[in-house]
Amino acid sequence: MAEVQKGLEGVVVADTITSLVNGVEGKLIYGGYKIEDLAENALFEEVVYLLWNGRLPNTTELEELRSAIAREAVLDENLITTLEGFPKDANPMAVLESAVAALAFYDGESEDLSVEAARRKAVRLTGQITTICAAWDRIRKEQAPVAPRADLTLAQNFVYMLSGEEPDKTASDAINVYLVLLAEHGMNASTFTSRVVTGTGADIHSAVVAAIAALKGPSHGGANSAAMKMFLEIEDPANVEQWFQDNIKSGKRRIMGIGHRVYKALDPRADILRKHAQALAESSGNTRWFEIADKLADTALSDEYFIERKLYPNVDYFSAIVLYTLKLDVDMFTPLFAMSRVAGWSAHIIEQIQNNRLIRPKANYVGPQDLEWKPASER
Amino acid sequence: MAEVQKGLEGVVVADTITSLVNGVEGKLIYGGYKIEDLAENALFEEVVYLLWNGRLPNTTELEELRSAIAREAVLDENLITTLEGFPKDANPMAVLESAVAALAFYDGESEDLSVEAARRKAVRLTGQITTICAAWDRIRKEQAPVAPRADLTLAQNFVYMLSGEEPDKTASDAINVYLVLLAEHGMNASTFTSRVVTGTGADIHSAVVAAIAALKGPSHGGANSAAMKMFLEIEDPANVEQWFQDNIKSGKRRIMGIGHRVYKALDPRADILRKHAQALAESSGNTRWFEIADKLADTALSDEYFIERKLYPNVDYFSAIVLYTLKLDVDMFTPLFAMSRVAGWSAHIIEQIQNNRLIRPKANYVGPQDLEWKPASER
Repeated sequence: MAEVQKGLEGVVVADTITSLVNGVEGKLIYGGYKIEDLAENALFEEVVYLLWNGRLPNTTELEELRSAIAREAVLDENLITTLEGFPKDANPMAVLESAVAALAFYDGESEDLSVEAARRKAVRLTGQITTICAAWDRIRKEQAPVAPRADLTLAQNFVYMLSGEEPDKTASDAINVYLVLLAEHGMNASTFTSRVVTGTGADIHSAVVAAIAALKGPSHGGANSAAMKMFLEIEDPANVEQWFQDNIKSGKRRIMGIGHRVYKALDPRADILRKHAQALAESSGNTRWFEIADKLADTALSDEYFIERKLYPNVDYFSAIVLYTLKLDVDMFTPLFAMSRVAGWSAHIIEQIQNNRLIRPKANYVGPQDLEWKPASER
Repeated sequence: MAEVQKGLEGVVVADTITSLVNGVEGKLIYGGYKIEDLAENALFEEVVYLLWNGRLPNTTELEELRSAIAREAVLDENLITTLEGFPKDANPMAVLESAVAALAFYDGESEDLSVEAARRKAVRLTGQITTICAAWDRIRKEQAPVAPRADLTLAQNFVYMLSGEEPDKTASDAINVYLVLLAEHGMNASTFTSRVVTGTGADIHSAVVAAIAALKGPSHGGANSAAMKMFLEIEDPANVEQWFQDNIKSGKRRIMGIGHRVYKALDPRADILRKHAQALAESSGNTRWFEIADKLADTALSDEYFIERKLYPNVDYFSAIVLYTLKLDVDMFTPLFAMSRVAGWSAHIIEQIQNNRLIRPKANYVGPQDLEWKPASER
């Protein structure tokens, strides 16, 4: 009987030119470029271009992609009506699953399974997912949704569509960095999901819907909201030590946002986000949540259990502070992750279409055999 | 560098007590019982009980599950309104993705991630998916949807909700056999997708939405519609030989519904469905489509290429004839597959929750490294 590889840990399922995750050294590159350089310099759209084309765009190519994403981010009026009919307390990730599936209804190429059509649909999906996130946050607060502007970047458009006001530079710059950092990360669970779905020949909308479903889990994209809920529960930096003793040392709970399947060193994205979280907190005049996060990380990192297992804060840990300081609702953190990761999903979906094979592993049957059928009355 | 296992062929990812697929001998058992015995004797609800509990129910247990599924199959009025807002030409599988995601809004336990809650939600999902399929088929034809009846089996309810009339016995018996045959099939792509999503800790609604997305692909559940489209294109049994020469021998196309990743012998479900297809066709007085399918299968099975590669008709091939003879629209075939397979998905999701681990393989980065950042204007 073959060995069961439950988590598929270390199993390589595809070649890719999207990103290299070096978990031992704590390094991440997208298409040849260090994540630190991209976070400092790149527009999210530049990273999207890089992931989809294997090289950075020149000025004209970048402007073409930026304006295409902005133009195509407009939602069909009928989809807005659908969103307005959803219950206001619906989970925003479930809303995103439902709404992205519905995007296919209004996409004239939804059933065109060619790679060229997938590329065009990826542009639309990238813009439209951002619009859905912003629209849903307004609709559930009984505010009219705001349409995207053709002259803005994706990060600016998100801030604009959320507030309805000229986008604040600090906020849209911070969102841009967040989007750049989260855009792609190798064969993570949601990306892998999008490849399994594409493997059956299904369309890119279906593959992205499935990826959003996977991202929703608290062991994946759901970790940023879960981390923030934990910081809110701790409430004050003075409570960190006691909370750690009561909840973590006691073995009752895990720290959300610490530890990662691949990184056995500091996640380079966590380091960058920590600096941004600190700067944003300081300029906002409220450093409480940053201090809680930082103190808890220090406490964990000096604890034997965490040291032995090489458990470090991951990207979700400090991103929670960044997004909370920008006044985003905690349950919108994971949709923001989706707004960014659709870039990586699309890149992998395109790679999968170009070199496709049904992804179909096996299960080990361990139940009984040769049972004899009897009618229910004789059981 | 580790070898790339593109299709994960032969890789075992979980132990299961749901089903054993023996592709070499062409055998399939669910929880110890031969598929032939189940197809001949079992109510779909009996199979659902078997898959979820590892044993067949007694009369009381069976009636409890049947009535729970029937009672809980009712859709929230608000979800009906959402469906009525969808464009009438929307792809029914995309509708199903969107609507099943929306079911979570109205499920009071949607964010309860316990295995007990997953079991209760599986009951609701099984009923509600059937109601969505029937409701959508009526709504798109400008007919008012029909609510499920608490006294019917799932197969009867489907026929009833589709027609609005007392369910015809021949039709509901045939649908029941179809549902039994399609309920579970090891670690197929959609089931695997549901496990990857569950691995992140995501809820059962999300896992089922993702599974529906995977099922949509023409190399998976989409094959039954694709097979029927092919039979319709052939149009007449007299055209089979020429069509085979022009399209298949020429290497231009593949036969939809012939060949399977796991079966290298006749799929036992195909054999059962062939008999039902023939009986239904004969009693309907129109054997044309059955004859086309049967003649094409014979042509393929006596062709060297198919013999060498052990390519046999799979479950989708003759099921297309069964469903078409029952007068279902061709684009509803794959939603019917989902109505059945939700039983197997739920069983695997429950197993995955009980013994969970994040499913996160790796990718092989084959792109450039150490590229130096330059601003767009210098590229």
